[in-house]
Amino acid sequence: MNAPLDGMVGALTLPQPYVLFLGDTTIPGFAKTAFGLRDWAPDKCVGELRLAGATVTTGLDALTPAEARARGARALVIGVANQGGVIPPSWRASLVEAMEAGLDLIAGMHMRLADIPELADAARRLGRRLIDVRVPPTQIPIATGRKRSGKRLLTVGTDCALGKKYTALALARAFELRGVEADFRASGQTGIMIAGGGIPMDAVVSDFEAGAAELLSPDAPANHWDVIEGQGAITHPSYAAVSLGLLHGSQPDVFVVCHEPGRTEMLGTAGYQLTSIEEIVELTFLLGRRTNPAIRCGGFAFNTSALEEEEAVALMARESWRLGLPVADPIRGGPAFDALVDSCLA
Amino acid sequence: MNAPLDGMVGALTLPQPYVLFLGDTTIPGFAKTAFGLRDWAPDKCVGELRLAGATVTTGLDALTPAEARARGARALVIGVANQGGVIPPSWRASLVEAMEAGLDLIAGMHMRLADIPELADAARRLGRRLIDVRVPPTQIPIATGRKRSGKRLLTVGTDCALGKKYTALALARAFELRGVEADFRASGQTGIMIAGGGIPMDAVVSDFEAGAAELLSPDAPANHWDVIEGQGAITHPSYAAVSLGLLHGSQPDVFVVCHEPGRTEMLGTAGYQLTSIEEIVELTFLLGRRTNPAIRCGGFAFNTSALEEEEAVALMARESWRLGLPVADPIRGGPAFDALVDSCLA
Repeated sequence: MNAPLDGMVGALTLPQPYVLFLGDTTIPGFAKTAFGLRDWAPDKCVGELRLAGATVTTGLDALTPAEARARGARALVIGVANQGGVIPPSWRASLVEAMEAGLDLIAGMHMRLADIPELADAARRLGRRLIDVRVPPTQIPIATGRKRSGKRLLTVGTDCALGKKYTALALARAFELRGVEADFRASGQTGIMIAGGGIPMDAVVSDFEAGAAELLSPDAPANHWDVIEGQGAITHPSYAAVSLGLLHGSQPDVFVVCHEPGRTEMLGTAGYQLTSIEEIVELTFLLGRRTNPAIRCGGFAFNTSALEEEEAVALMARESWRLGLPVADPIRGGPAFDALVDSCLA
Repeated sequence: MNAPLDGMVGALTLPQPYVLFLGDTTIPGFAKTAFGLRDWAPDKCVGELRLAGATVTTGLDALTPAEARARGARALVIGVANQGGVIPPSWRASLVEAMEAGLDLIAGMHMRLADIPELADAARRLGRRLIDVRVPPTQIPIATGRKRSGKRLLTVGTDCALGKKYTALALARAFELRGVEADFRASGQTGIMIAGGGIPMDAVVSDFEAGAAELLSPDAPANHWDVIEGQGAITHPSYAAVSLGLLHGSQPDVFVVCHEPGRTEMLGTAGYQLTSIEEIVELTFLLGRRTNPAIRCGGFAFNTSALEEEEAVALMARESWRLGLPVADPIRGGPAFDALVDSCLA
């Protein structure tokens, strides 16, 4: 799993292990980088660092920078995003303190670490590295639409931040457990941190978006699966351009729709109702068949973290009956998830 | 018309008049910048400059750089694009010669003039300006989806390079002739050269694509129309990300589908059939109603430049009957175009 794409994120070698920085965030949806690293690279995370006012936690030990360094951390990862991807002034003193404690900084936000004079000065003074995993490759070709060899699965969603990366990671792992060759292909900063390679699709210039997606899952053996991390939602008023370029360039044979039951509004918008699962299926077929006429829906991945086990299982069974395909929570696993894997590989 | 968007293309003031550079191109579809300037800014164009092997012409006088300078030209505009937006080595000697003759260079390609050492050196040595109109504003916000005041029309297409800019320019002009306040909003390099402002939408980072479109047509008086130049096609395997971000962010009340009868394959792809007009209408409704539930189709703009007048008029009449809305060629004008304008303003 995670065959690095040579040269695609430059000569990026991330210093590990990490301490996860959560800032002062109060919105769990914005801390998906920290949660992703905790869940998919637990042996690389020594703890978390929170500021006053933060209500979100990964459940890892809360550490000071010096404590994290003493536990072996080599880098602080900014594990929280906010609207627009900025690093607010209120975080900066802590980030400088981390560098003073001996940690490099890793981030994947729109605002680059090196563009903040306070951080750039401290890094120079202390000999620390500022690593941005959101920098896309420099030579991306225009997409051609040429059909590539090998099989591809893309996770799509009814919104941002509801499990597209988790689902892709879990499916790639499940494929491998069944002896099916598979690579997780990371399209966002957390995925890249976990996988050690990939392309930050939302940082790519629009004209090259589909071309970047073509680059992300290159020709492969006929039985090989690339399991591609989706981005945004095709109906998200802010991010649909990313989603469509990724869909066209990925040429998925199978897509899995990720959804969070109970969510009613699109993240980061004012008043945009969540799109229905059926509408996402319909649009993904209509748009996706352009570059892969054989595209099919493998099923649905629900993020049921807000529900009790019994309630979640009952809901997913009802929805599976209604939608006519397996519905599973990749985090809960179980027979429903096995059925989803079966359906994807069918 | 063409109210400049303050600060949006920096303090860009283009030196005029122009000589139009066509390179050695043999594909008319790639010379749309030159054709656009000839048709919409004829008083700003003293002639054209072609290299050996070129078969495409604007019909303007073929001039050497010195002749162009003698006729008053102050800048050479690179009026031709190619796949990927590069400036091939075979063009460079002519571009240096133009600077030696006293001309500045203006381009709107992905490859920046100043990144070519040969051109950068010559510009420094000769005191000439290298102006790239593809540089987007630096501070684009993430789209919010907030409904803006005023009316908006977006031209969409069944492919690239078949008249979306022309149609928007012609409609904005026609609206004004009827006493309706209207601004042409340019989303590509040629449009920006004609209008003197706008945003090069295909050069914007994907995450900000819809945000840039929101910026391009800001709040306006209730009766005011922004007539927005479309980009690409929602089904183009290379460029659909640009088209969808522009559609979502533009929140059009009305869209007009641009089409070239007789074209069978998508430009720049191998083997992708042109999408049908009906499918573009369907997809534009499905996707566009997300940010403007009241979106409607105003009609169809056909590029019939390859047909005789009689044949074109008959074809458009048949298609108008079949599609149930006006079909017109904005270049030919006439009663069909009046009907299209009526339908858009209805």
